[in-house]
Amino acid sequence: MSIENLLSEGIKLTPPSFVRGILKAASDPEVISFAGGLPNPVSFPQEELLESMERIVKTYGSKVFQYSVTAGLPELRQYIADRYHRKFGLNLTMDNVIITTGSQQALDLIGKVFLDKGDRIIVEKPTYLAAIQAFSLHQPYFCPVELTEEGLNLKQLEEALQHNVKFIYTIPEFQNPTGLTYSAENRNRIYEMLKDRDVVLIEDDPYGELRFEGEHLPYIGAGRLPNSILLGTFSKTVTPGMRIGFIISGNTELLRCLSIAKEAGDLHTNIFAQYLIWDYLANNDLDGHIAKIRALYQKQAQAMLDAMDRYFPDTVSYTRPRGGMFLWVTLPEGVSAMSMFRKALEKKVAFVPGDPFYTDVKGANTMRLNYTNADCETIEEGIRRLGNLLKELC
Amino acid sequence: MSIENLLSEGIKLTPPSFVRGILKAASDPEVISFAGGLPNPVSFPQEELLESMERIVKTYGSKVFQYSVTAGLPELRQYIADRYHRKFGLNLTMDNVIITTGSQQALDLIGKVFLDKGDRIIVEKPTYLAAIQAFSLHQPYFCPVELTEEGLNLKQLEEALQHNVKFIYTIPEFQNPTGLTYSAENRNRIYEMLKDRDVVLIEDDPYGELRFEGEHLPYIGAGRLPNSILLGTFSKTVTPGMRIGFIISGNTELLRCLSIAKEAGDLHTNIFAQYLIWDYLANNDLDGHIAKIRALYQKQAQAMLDAMDRYFPDTVSYTRPRGGMFLWVTLPEGVSAMSMFRKALEKKVAFVPGDPFYTDVKGANTMRLNYTNADCETIEEGIRRLGNLLKELC
Repeated sequence: MSIENLLSEGIKLTPPSFVRGILKAASDPEVISFAGGLPNPVSFPQEELLESMERIVKTYGSKVFQYSVTAGLPELRQYIADRYHRKFGLNLTMDNVIITTGSQQALDLIGKVFLDKGDRIIVEKPTYLAAIQAFSLHQPYFCPVELTEEGLNLKQLEEALQHNVKFIYTIPEFQNPTGLTYSAENRNRIYEMLKDRDVVLIEDDPYGELRFEGEHLPYIGAGRLPNSILLGTFSKTVTPGMRIGFIISGNTELLRCLSIAKEAGDLHTNIFAQYLIWDYLANNDLDGHIAKIRALYQKQAQAMLDAMDRYFPDTVSYTRPRGGMFLWVTLPEGVSAMSMFRKALEKKVAFVPGDPFYTDVKGANTMRLNYTNADCETIEEGIRRLGNLLKELC
Repeated sequence: MSIENLLSEGIKLTPPSFVRGILKAASDPEVISFAGGLPNPVSFPQEELLESMERIVKTYGSKVFQYSVTAGLPELRQYIADRYHRKFGLNLTMDNVIITTGSQQALDLIGKVFLDKGDRIIVEKPTYLAAIQAFSLHQPYFCPVELTEEGLNLKQLEEALQHNVKFIYTIPEFQNPTGLTYSAENRNRIYEMLKDRDVVLIEDDPYGELRFEGEHLPYIGAGRLPNSILLGTFSKTVTPGMRIGFIISGNTELLRCLSIAKEAGDLHTNIFAQYLIWDYLANNDLDGHIAKIRALYQKQAQAMLDAMDRYFPDTVSYTRPRGGMFLWVTLPEGVSAMSMFRKALEKKVAFVPGDPFYTDVKGANTMRLNYTNADCETIEEGIRRLGNLLKELC
């Protein structure tokens, strides 16, 4: 008896993650991996988190171990509301915030709350591979809109909006996979296009606090579009292992629906982890901590760019991110990064080929490189190996 | 612009949890609540967990804070495989185990992996309300099969199996909401009925370790049906706040699909919590700890039954559980427990009316009472209040 006949259509159409599929190969200690998206572990405030653990167990006792409410710890939600008011000018109360089990769960909840089979959604081309996964379960019709150095291709966006579209999924700051950031002008044009339309704008912002160059740009929809959702996380600023992300929206009816979906999904996020992150934030200087992470990642990004300038052939181009964790390499047309992948692994260097970041491209001539999880010497050596391979192939 | 038009059919059909909806009313300190399903907080091994926290941060450092693999911590999966071999005779390796974000996530993943709109599934009548929630998102056709003192009504089960059915969702031990346990004979008959059929059997077993009377009974399908899934959790034996549950199956193709769904759902479960639970289990006597919880719950269950014998009118009947956390009260026909609920709240006592545990009944004459989260005196007083109300109404 095969299980095949019993499976849902959705799961059959959901691609396994390329990144997670190669974790084993990439974790060979001899391989220099630019494939993952791991924060640098030196950025985890381990001592401070241990202090917070001891404090919350002593202070709150059984509360940090018991079942809890679905929307999340009120104190943590209030902290997030206050921080986004102070730093980004959003007028929020804790009722505008739901804690999620990592940002990934937010994508899962969004899929559940909006998507029936065949519904249209607009995504960047390329876009975050795990968002493609989360939405694919619901069998939507993906409408990819090209991402440029300025942001979304506005002509393509306008065309895509001629149909009924449920939502637009964007990562406007230091996008995953490209490292690109939408310009202020592009953001405004998108806002103007959407403000009278019945469509949800999702701004996924896991990297916004990791800007190491230039000024923070205003959100596209957060704080001004009525059907707007902003996603955030403590994975890149405190610790990813605790799986604490959050959804912000001015639309409380929408949050009510997301909350029902969350209730059905995991009842609530680990309450110990919520107390822990909140206590850490209340007792430490988050901005000072983030400043250190930024300085570290700027150095590592620069090391990668310097090495690429040195070792990559002229036929290869790449983005120059002003923050975040990734950059994006474009090979000459016709060169498949996917078929290069195995050869690179033989040379003991790993990356993610472009394919899994597209909903409609195979054999893409693009690849994503992560620079946050290796020191500068290792980055230089890895890029040298990759450069040698590129010189052979391009 | 209303969000209504943009919502999925699935979310519109998913009921919010009655239990979580009344959390606020039930948390009034003057209200004696039998409504929740909270383990007694005196059963949380707080000191030992704090020791484990300190140990894992010192021993494993950044690993307990970093991203991790989707299937879960290998050491914890191996522990579970070994325990289920030793205690319940199942032949397992860690490849037969996936860690989930609470058992609730297992229900969510099962819904995703099996259900397309309109697919038939068999559930107990009544069944766990949050399973109804998790499955409802996918708009299945629910086929309820009556739950009796013996287990499933076999005639109804046979009839329901005449159609194509994706899965059967059961809670054979100390069922939620009824506290009933399937007899050995009933289990065998179900196994015989299923062994040549292409259908998945889900045995949800969160309470199996909480037996305070009688002998452990063999699983229906685990270890012998090829398409069988067994769900477990540390929520009732160690701590629910950490959200650590698990899926066990002999079918690795099925586990691969569940793992893809999990990847898309939250990447992985909080890795700190996984290290924590594993370290606690490796360094403490879980069976000794569970023995204490059992003795506590037996005393509390007995206190509730004694009080019901004393204060409830003869027209009201109730189950006598041999383990677990709940019992089930049946009022005279025609008396709606739902319409009684508000009156009970005025008398400062709360329960869960039967309705949310059914997919096809309104105004049910049944209610669920939880006995694990109040001391014996409080239980007696709460049952006295409820008894007075029942005498007025029944």
